[in-house]
Amino acid sequence: MRFFSDNAARIHPKVMEAIVAADQMDTAYDGDRWSKALDACLSELFGTQVEVLWVPTGTAANCLALAALCPPYGGVVCHRDSHIQNDEGGAPEFYTHGAKLMLADGEGAKLTPDTIRAVIDAIANDVHRVQPHAISITNATEYGRVYNPEEVAAIGALAKERGLGFHMDGARFANAVARLGCTPAALTWQSGVEALSFGFVKNGAMSAEALVFFKPGLADVTRRRRKRAGLLMSKGRYLAAQVLAMVENDLWIANGALANACAERLAGAAGDRLVYPVEANEVFLRATPEEAAKLRSQGFDFYDWAEGEIRLVTAWDTDAHHVAALADAIVAL
Amino acid sequence: MRFFSDNAARIHPKVMEAIVAADQMDTAYDGDRWSKALDACLSELFGTQVEVLWVPTGTAANCLALAALCPPYGGVVCHRDSHIQNDEGGAPEFYTHGAKLMLADGEGAKLTPDTIRAVIDAIANDVHRVQPHAISITNATEYGRVYNPEEVAAIGALAKERGLGFHMDGARFANAVARLGCTPAALTWQSGVEALSFGFVKNGAMSAEALVFFKPGLADVTRRRRKRAGLLMSKGRYLAAQVLAMVENDLWIANGALANACAERLAGAAGDRLVYPVEANEVFLRATPEEAAKLRSQGFDFYDWAEGEIRLVTAWDTDAHHVAALADAIVAL
Amino acid sequence: MRFFSDNAARIHPKVMEAIVAADQMDTAYDGDRWSKALDACLSELFGTQVEVLWVPTGTAANCLALAALCPPYGGVVCHRDSHIQNDEGGAPEFYTHGAKLMLADGEGAKLTPDTIRAVIDAIANDVHRVQPHAISITNATEYGRVYNPEEVAAIGALAKERGLGFHMDGARFANAVARLGCTPAALTWQSGVEALSFGFVKNGAMSAEALVFFKPGLADVTRRRRKRAGLLMSKGRYLAAQVLAMVENDLWIANGALANACAERLAGAAGDRLVYPVEANEVFLRATPEEAAKLRSQGFDFYDWAEGEIRLVTAWDTDAHHVAALADAIVAL
Amino acid sequence: MRFFSDNAARIHPKVMEAIVAADQMDTAYDGDRWSKALDACLSELFGTQVEVLWVPTGTAANCLALAALCPPYGGVVCHRDSHIQNDEGGAPEFYTHGAKLMLADGEGAKLTPDTIRAVIDAIANDVHRVQPHAISITNATEYGRVYNPEEVAAIGALAKERGLGFHMDGARFANAVARLGCTPAALTWQSGVEALSFGFVKNGAMSAEALVFFKPGLADVTRRRRKRAGLLMSKGRYLAAQVLAMVENDLWIANGALANACAERLAGAAGDRLVYPVEANEVFLRATPEEAAKLRSQGFDFYDWAEGEIRLVTAWDTDAHHVAALADAIVAL
Repeated sequence: MRFFSDNAARIHPKVMEAIVAADQMDTAYDGDRWSKALDACLSELFGTQVEVLWVPTGTAANCLALAALCPPYGGVVCHRDSHIQNDEGGAPEFYTHGAKLMLADGEGAKLTPDTIRAVIDAIANDVHRVQPHAISITNATEYGRVYNPEEVAAIGALAKERGLGFHMDGARFANAVARLGCTPAALTWQSGVEALSFGFVKNGAMSAEALVFFKPGLADVTRRRRKRAGLLMSKGRYLAAQVLAMVENDLWIANGALANACAERLAGAAGDRLVYPVEANEVFLRATPEEAAKLRSQGFDFYDWAEGEIRLVTAWDTDAHHVAALADAIVAL
Repeated sequence: MRFFSDNAARIHPKVMEAIVAADQMDTAYDGDRWSKALDACLSELFGTQVEVLWVPTGTAANCLALAALCPPYGGVVCHRDSHIQNDEGGAPEFYTHGAKLMLADGEGAKLTPDTIRAVIDAIANDVHRVQPHAISITNATEYGRVYNPEEVAAIGALAKERGLGFHMDGARFANAVARLGCTPAALTWQSGVEALSFGFVKNGAMSAEALVFFKPGLADVTRRRRKRAGLLMSKGRYLAAQVLAMVENDLWIANGALANACAERLAGAAGDRLVYPVEANEVFLRATPEEAAKLRSQGFDFYDWAEGEIRLVTAWDTDAHHVAALADAIVAL
Repeated sequence: MRFFSDNAARIHPKVMEAIVAADQMDTAYDGDRWSKALDACLSELFGTQVEVLWVPTGTAANCLALAALCPPYGGVVCHRDSHIQNDEGGAPEFYTHGAKLMLADGEGAKLTPDTIRAVIDAIANDVHRVQPHAISITNATEYGRVYNPEEVAAIGALAKERGLGFHMDGARFANAVARLGCTPAALTWQSGVEALSFGFVKNGAMSAEALVFFKPGLADVTRRRRKRAGLLMSKGRYLAAQVLAMVENDLWIANGALANACAERLAGAAGDRLVYPVEANEVFLRATPEEAAKLRSQGFDFYDWAEGEIRLVTAWDTDAHHVAALADAIVAL
Repeated sequence: MRFFSDNAARIHPKVMEAIVAADQMDTAYDGDRWSKALDACLSELFGTQVEVLWVPTGTAANCLALAALCPPYGGVVCHRDSHIQNDEGGAPEFYTHGAKLMLADGEGAKLTPDTIRAVIDAIANDVHRVQPHAISITNATEYGRVYNPEEVAAIGALAKERGLGFHMDGARFANAVARLGCTPAALTWQSGVEALSFGFVKNGAMSAEALVFFKPGLADVTRRRRKRAGLLMSKGRYLAAQVLAMVENDLWIANGALANACAERLAGAAGDRLVYPVEANEVFLRATPEEAAKLRSQGFDFYDWAEGEIRLVTAWDTDAHHVAALADAIVAL
């Protein structure tokens, strides 16, 4: 019974159908009819004109966005527990040609205008110091917390005031929107976000994420960077088809809600053990090594996050029986 | 009737089956059972112990290999008409952090020891000149020519003598082996090749190429670079399954032979129009703009390679009727 | 009366004499007799065979050393208040092609084995995390503290145990050695240091630092990187001559001692105001904005380090009368 | 008797005086009075408002200019025998983060609109091909030829038409202006040049070149890149003072004329042996190995450029007696 990660989840049947349906000869790269449909599809979803590039991984989406927003000699403010800092093997530095990640604090891996200011206001504006050029937040965060539109907008206002780019790592954007019940627009461009890594791989797709640009002028250069990074797949139609299948009929948000519901069920069982409020599809809870071992002996697989702390992750395809069993097991600890 | 490129070909049914069959939860990244089977599968094919990384594009395979063989301050000797020089949007420079491609000549995009020596012997060994660190050849070449094992071995011997790394871009390796009837071993490590970009995407796969290291010690660092480049797919099993399906039952070579046969048929029709001998799945022939327009008006799609020159590419799924029709049309010109 | 920085100090007369004496035609770059004498000169000083490259700035020396010790996908552990992190405008990331600085704590900008372990032990050894490849310390530190040989050796032992490179930023190495009264050998290679940025510019030279490699095999590649960075001066003799003049007759240590003595005098006057013990040529002291203004009104120039904290820096050429006057003024606050 | 290179020439006495005169404490980096005087000094010389950065080498000047004009994913058209391609150890690729040098032809290392168009018109504007972003020419060229203002303007017009940046490597700008008798303005901004590497080191300075920006908006970012490259010298006043001394009283052009006159004298003696017309301070002449050996046996030092070809370089301090002796020796061959 796997609560290790949403990374390895299965493909949603509708996505697999779409992949099979795309198995027709068409133009290579992103000249095919599926790829060409992406801009319109996501423009409708976001209620504004956007430009969209498919990419095969979330790391690629994030780092292409950062490269679009920050020059090699600049810096990107992010949370010290963010994915771009800790889990991308140096990809942000690779794609930006050495920009510096500037680590800020915040509860539950959430930045606030205050924690951002604490970092950037300490930087003298001279050539000796790397200057901030962008802010990157993750929604839902690495600890399963969500920023609501007001919180995003507050950071967006700060970004605008200081002339900083604003990126959202939305590997779990679906979980955030499902939780908040807001529009995708409210959580992004209406709050100042300029580029979104819109994640699908954790949520039912096989190999496609969408890099969404709300700010004009960034997509064309990024297409060149995508090619230069070896990310321009010959048969882009198979990626585009996944994104289209996820967006059509709101599959993305339905799947996000499914995963959230499983996590909520676990949260209910965890009670005082919870390290963070559960707002998306991740549950961090306190458990001694003995308790963790006991859960494992019952067939549950999960990640040891830190000393005395374990992480449970649910996905769109998490089995409800497994969730019930795990909830019981936690209560029984 | 599409003779534009093999890049956009369909997926072989056995590969699609393998993708569907891999739709089970397993460990993320490359910890799954399919990914773990790659080393053994390709070691058997090559008759020696190899290390294999799946990657989503041929450009990524090539450039990870170059980064493994050449430091940022070094150079890679390649043909001036090579894919890495002309068709990868600067990816070699990106992955190597600015190594210089050193352009050599050779008929049909084939390097020879002589043309390589003409480049490297002119470079004084001082700090003012970028020094060569590796050689990269393409087999079959960008003009549909093949290097036989003896030709590869001659370059391999030069590489060894000068202490240079040796990479083969095998985007159409299947076509070369199918043509030559030699073993994959003879064309690679037995002839000095240290790293091979083993292409499947043009040959029936959807999104997986195999980067094969014959030289020990390169794979581990490359796994870090693959991650750092945003190429480490969450669900690697879908890529590994493609490679396995292509290699099992010799599908790769059967498909290569199919494509070659179509090209050979066209070559027979082309006669004196041929720019290069046809040895793989590409046919370059002389055609005036009027002749090209005439072919197009009959429903044939292809690439205008240069003035008075068109390129026809066949693939594993090229329709035999289309080939026959095109052959007739060429004869009728 | 300038206590702002040692960066802008004058050139020692013996150094200027050496520059003038080098004004003869000789071979360009580093083929001249002065450049060629550097290895022997510094090998004698350090009591072991070293390889030496002149470079025009301390930032260049540091970053060439880091590039020699850390690959693009690796990390360098350094203090969060170190010069490489805060004052080099992103040069470490530029020279290393995007290696990550891993920020550790420690009193007075001094790392300890414990603070280093706190950083590196938290890094899982997988491809998702950037792995540490080197440690860099500054001696004397950015807060005017010194590491003694035992402290350096403890870090050196950790570096060896973990397979990490070990670099010392010695922009104020002279001040450290002058303070400690130890041999240069004890503070470097005998304690595990593999590369030293040996600073002269703050200590009487005009434009020359020495990058000293104790570990064989690093210098040759670094010569290529120095050229590639545009740092290979045509007339290297003028740089080499400065280093030779500083080392001959122990001018470097005599100058370091002069600067230290001035700082010690100020420290004596500062009493409880001292933020850190004064061990080199920098004095950090608590002063209200009003007190700082009062000192400035008396003609003293210095740096506002932080709120309620000022920094006074002395140099080899600091006027003893100025020091006495400033000491009196501090006492009078 | 040294005709090997102008790189190793002595320092002009007025420059040395200026260095000694700058030996006063002032603000570090480029905040001193000498550095601050550069913009005005060179704006007057060029008859327009320019922004100037001192840098310690010509390679640094060139590559900072290229980085200002070309993004990492772009290309720079230059001559295949240019210094940036052959003699800077990969510095252009380092500074630009991997931009591609696009090699064009032209007699005497001179580009023409036609040879540039031959390169750029062959590049399809798609993401697979690196796109040109800038043109770089050298004046006087690596073969001692000069572009006159009309020739520069023709290239400048092409650059403007195609939206390309335009850089001039002026390591021997003084020799070109001295030869042409035109204004510095005519040869640069009035002909479309946006950035000039104005060389002084080969012409009487010790360690200072001036990077001159005619196009607004490039200098500020370049100041950050200069710092990030470890090129921001602590004591910039010593570099600025050299530039000021060279420009005041037209020392730069007087020195250029001196070097040219020596070369002209040699050219007169060389007659039919000349490979290129002699227009600056370099003389390429045909000489068999035996003839070269004979000249060397008479005490002349020079560079073997290619088989049967030697290079003689004169400088501002070349001894007239040496020139006369060499001229006689050439005639006597």
